[in-house]
Amino acid sequence: MERTYNFSAGPAMLPREVLEQARDELLNWHDCGLSVMEMTHRGKDFSAIIAQAEADLRELLGVPANYKVLFLQGGATMQFAQIPLNLLAGRSADYLVTGAWSKKAFKEAQKVGSARLVATTEASNFTRLPAASELEFDPDAAYLHVCSNETVHGVEIHDLSAFRTSATIVADMSSHILSRPVDIGQYGLIYGGAQKNIGPAGLTLVIVREDLLGRAPTNLPTMLDYAVQAEHGSMLNTPPTYSIYVAGLVFQWLKKQGGLAAMEQTNIAKAKLLYQAIDNSGLYHNPVEPACRSRMNVPFTLNKPGLEELFVAEAKKQNIVSIKGHKMVGGMRASIYNAMPPQGVQALVDFMQDFERRHG
Amino acid sequence: MERTYNFSAGPAMLPREVLEQARDELLNWHDCGLSVMEMTHRGKDFSAIIAQAEADLRELLGVPANYKVLFLQGGATMQFAQIPLNLLAGRSADYLVTGAWSKKAFKEAQKVGSARLVATTEASNFTRLPAASELEFDPDAAYLHVCSNETVHGVEIHDLSAFRTSATIVADMSSHILSRPVDIGQYGLIYGGAQKNIGPAGLTLVIVREDLLGRAPTNLPTMLDYAVQAEHGSMLNTPPTYSIYVAGLVFQWLKKQGGLAAMEQTNIAKAKLLYQAIDNSGLYHNPVEPACRSRMNVPFTLNKPGLEELFVAEAKKQNIVSIKGHKMVGGMRASIYNAMPPQGVQALVDFMQDFERRHG
Repeated sequence: MERTYNFSAGPAMLPREVLEQARDELLNWHDCGLSVMEMTHRGKDFSAIIAQAEADLRELLGVPANYKVLFLQGGATMQFAQIPLNLLAGRSADYLVTGAWSKKAFKEAQKVGSARLVATTEASNFTRLPAASELEFDPDAAYLHVCSNETVHGVEIHDLSAFRTSATIVADMSSHILSRPVDIGQYGLIYGGAQKNIGPAGLTLVIVREDLLGRAPTNLPTMLDYAVQAEHGSMLNTPPTYSIYVAGLVFQWLKKQGGLAAMEQTNIAKAKLLYQAIDNSGLYHNPVEPACRSRMNVPFTLNKPGLEELFVAEAKKQNIVSIKGHKMVGGMRASIYNAMPPQGVQALVDFMQDFERRHG
Repeated sequence: MERTYNFSAGPAMLPREVLEQARDELLNWHDCGLSVMEMTHRGKDFSAIIAQAEADLRELLGVPANYKVLFLQGGATMQFAQIPLNLLAGRSADYLVTGAWSKKAFKEAQKVGSARLVATTEASNFTRLPAASELEFDPDAAYLHVCSNETVHGVEIHDLSAFRTSATIVADMSSHILSRPVDIGQYGLIYGGAQKNIGPAGLTLVIVREDLLGRAPTNLPTMLDYAVQAEHGSMLNTPPTYSIYVAGLVFQWLKKQGGLAAMEQTNIAKAKLLYQAIDNSGLYHNPVEPACRSRMNVPFTLNKPGLEELFVAEAKKQNIVSIKGHKMVGGMRASIYNAMPPQGVQALVDFMQDFERRHG
């Protein structure tokens, strides 16, 4: 059986060991005679699974004791509304717009509450981060929202201190969470859809500082109230049990790889290999300023017209799939999350160089 | 490897053939070199999976062309808010309360909008359905909400015509959808969490008549707007892809069983076997009026005190698990959804009779 190198931005590649374990225990988890999919979420087996997943995640990310870990549903897009609904409490929030996803988050916050723009780099096609001189903070903002890795535009905030204000920072980390160590204490709330670096789609992770809970209006749907979800250990109703189980397997896999410091070194090396291949070529081009290039999502265009379809087709013959770029940006995009092995990036680089020799 | 008879109310048993197929293609779906968990939802492979799932579901349920099928997240509890938020449009809705779940739905509707009670059978401990004389309909109601099968209390509406009004009917079918043919045209909207009769937890099915779309207020979170979800084919953002895939396998399994008319016959026979065993015993008791007993969820108590723990422990030795009742009702509960084979119900009945002989 031949597996591929899958460069999809999400749902994305999962570690082979994780999939093999999920397969091996699919009909009968730990000899309990049930699939994890069939287990009541109120029983001791699933309670052990979710508790272990949370403990491993807390260990990996160094989550301080005064933060709640929530396993929710609806993806980052649900959070775009849920965050202002829970945290605004009648105030306004600041939004930094550095790509397609933070732009969507800003728009949704304006729909359900009050939000203002700190800065946007849209005029530069989201190829850079704003300079300090461009930032206009509201000193009374309920929070500052950032997307610390923009999946479509390939822009990553490597140093949050450039954007620090007195406001609580809320960060969409969907596409780079668990790819590097992070100081959770710098944030009031971080969140992410699972389907990039955590596990299967349908699970949304929220880590929130306890003092931010309990500010929701009384008419907020109960499912969307962080305080209620925290009180019920993410089990106000049936959570996405199987996705939580697979995420738990990913967390254990990450611990075996040496944790997030080790992952970061691997991810730096993978990104460096790919960006160097792009920068040293005459055919490929990445438009993002080097200081804020994403380690996870690497968009690149081909300088010669008419080659894109051929690139995708020939890549597929080398078992390189889901390499086509987002329609907003065009060209190609290689998403190289934790589960993409260095050999996968090497295979892509080898193919790109060979393709350039033949068609460049 | 020994599998169990799992009487959990949900997440619940899945057909063995479905689990085996999921296992066999877990690392490599249809030789595409990817797990379904890893596939982009925008690609042709997943598009085929979700299209086939919807087509099979439409065929099974006979969904008319003027209804949209939505694959959402958040469970029935999210729907408890999402329904009034989408459908009230400034009006009030009628709620029929016949058990724990319709009571919760009513409470949530009051939280996010305006709702009034048509009737409640709480004074009878939810062991019956209200008589026609007890019903007080609001002629201007935006809709009438019913829970057509109460999972905790084991009460099922077998004949909707007793509750028909001029209002659009909205039904929570979480725990009996796909267990019997249903005339979708009688309803404006039906919904259900997947984890009982559809597939893994984390997927919520909504089937809604098109004329009910587009009534949402402008500040509704985009993810909660049925019209937007319908317009995007349930893919406004990444849907719970793997759960949709497994649900699709369940739909194909149901078709192989002969569809819902055949399932209904099997389910009638399974329920009859179990209720007769209860009614003919001196030890077991089901409090629900026979005319509205659920074919899916069979709660029963033991007339002799102090035996419950022993019952559960001895059942487990016979591979009968998750038989303990909901804390609201006490005693035992056997959930006998589509995936519970008649042999499982027979095994339970045999055990119950043997247990009564020894301890009754």
